[in-house]
Amino acid sequence: MRIDVLTLFPEMFAPMDHSIMKQAQEEGVLSFETHNFRRNPVNKHGHVDDYPYGGGAGMLLRVEPIVDTLEELEMTDKSRVILMDPAGKPFTQDLAQEWSQEEHLVFICGHYEGFDHRVRDYITDEVSIGDYVLTNGELPTMVMIDSTVRLIPEVVGNAHSIVEESHQRNLLEHPQYTRPREYRGKSIPDVLLSGHHSNIELWQQKEAIRRTYNNRPDLLEKAELTDQEREWVKEFESQ
Amino acid sequence: MRIDVLTLFPEMFAPMDHSIMKQAQEEGVLSFETHNFRRNPVNKHGHVDDYPYGGGAGMLLRVEPIVDTLEELEMTDKSRVILMDPAGKPFTQDLAQEWSQEEHLVFICGHYEGFDHRVRDYITDEVSIGDYVLTNGELPTMVMIDSTVRLIPEVVGNAHSIVEESHQRNLLEHPQYTRPREYRGKSIPDVLLSGHHSNIELWQQKEAIRRTYNNRPDLLEKAELTDQEREWVKEFESQ
Repeated sequence: MRIDVLTLFPEMFAPMDHSIMKQAQEEGVLSFETHNFRRNPVNKHGHVDDYPYGGGAGMLLRVEPIVDTLEELEMTDKSRVILMDPAGKPFTQDLAQEWSQEEHLVFICGHYEGFDHRVRDYITDEVSIGDYVLTNGELPTMVMIDSTVRLIPEVVGNAHSIVEESHQRNLLEHPQYTRPREYRGKSIPDVLLSGHHSNIELWQQKEAIRRTYNNRPDLLEKAELTDQEREWVKEFESQ
Repeated sequence: MRIDVLTLFPEMFAPMDHSIMKQAQEEGVLSFETHNFRRNPVNKHGHVDDYPYGGGAGMLLRVEPIVDTLEELEMTDKSRVILMDPAGKPFTQDLAQEWSQEEHLVFICGHYEGFDHRVRDYITDEVSIGDYVLTNGELPTMVMIDSTVRLIPEVVGNAHSIVEESHQRNLLEHPQYTRPREYRGKSIPDVLLSGHHSNIELWQQKEAIRRTYNNRPDLLEKAELTDQEREWVKEFESQ
């Protein structure tokens, strides 16, 4: 996969030298590059923003430096060009999964004042990572890249985890414990020391339902539950 | 405000040297520090994770190094200790607003395999920035910090923006344009050049409703609309 990022702050992408991103690049599965559209030689005047027509606070990013920079990339019909926008569709695990199959992702990072609307003619995906306002697009871009890259099938890692499975089932994961057995008077549940695997599994399954019921009941509606799991939900409801 | 972050990857916080974060620190409004709980001298063995009791893939972060590190911070009754968790309440603009009034925020960054459940005894807020899986807690922590710090009243900036206002009203912002007037055959709407301020405002108001109607109809339900705005919604519905 190739990922290109258009940004005014390439230094902000330092976190991309770590963890799964570093690994994916070292394994040759991913090529990652940032492009500062202020330094773009085509954009001789370094003039990336300007006042909005019709008045209003703040400055807007201009369409030209962005499109000029896009045109220097090797785009194909399959390239997806992604813009962060509160108006966009929500970024979800399903979308990360979809993007992880793509050949080429391009992210355009702006600041919160926004873009000249005509930038949108060059975009395939407008997305939002959540209902909150950020200073600029760099952090949400890194969030989306991290979430996507860890799902690329060729990336060797332990993406297959309890969190993953829970997410796929629309459940929260069950509580987990590691050493020490007792910490400041708090012991781990006895069943986890029993060595009785089917009991442990049953406990984990039930506690996952309990946690989801307590913390994210909205997820339970989307989850496909077994008969046993539905009984547990009834049990919690009656308590 | 004081922000402390517990992390195994302090170098990932480079983006916090930029933009609004840099500004807030230079203005003396914010003190920001990372604490590597692996290097914590109390944790002599550098042993931060271990296998889960009862089996399962991956490693869990242990409770001791985290609590030891927390106890070295100057905590007060008002300190909020925040953990990223898919089970948490969703992080929203309202929560960012609430946190921006606090004196002390502590974020604990883990990796996606999770924590010993007993860490939760030391937490005041469990939050999720969205329904997607990330490799670790560093990026979502930065997202939440950025979103919060820009709302601190003393931070001199232009947080008061069109995006801000739209968000407060539960609407998307109207399309915005800057120079050039024409770009590759696409002109800006004539009304923006009219100099007729009330017409411009009316156009902006209507286009904000149109964009919200088209892209995020769910927001319209939460928004308090004027009679005029409700009429526009009816107009779009009938088209």
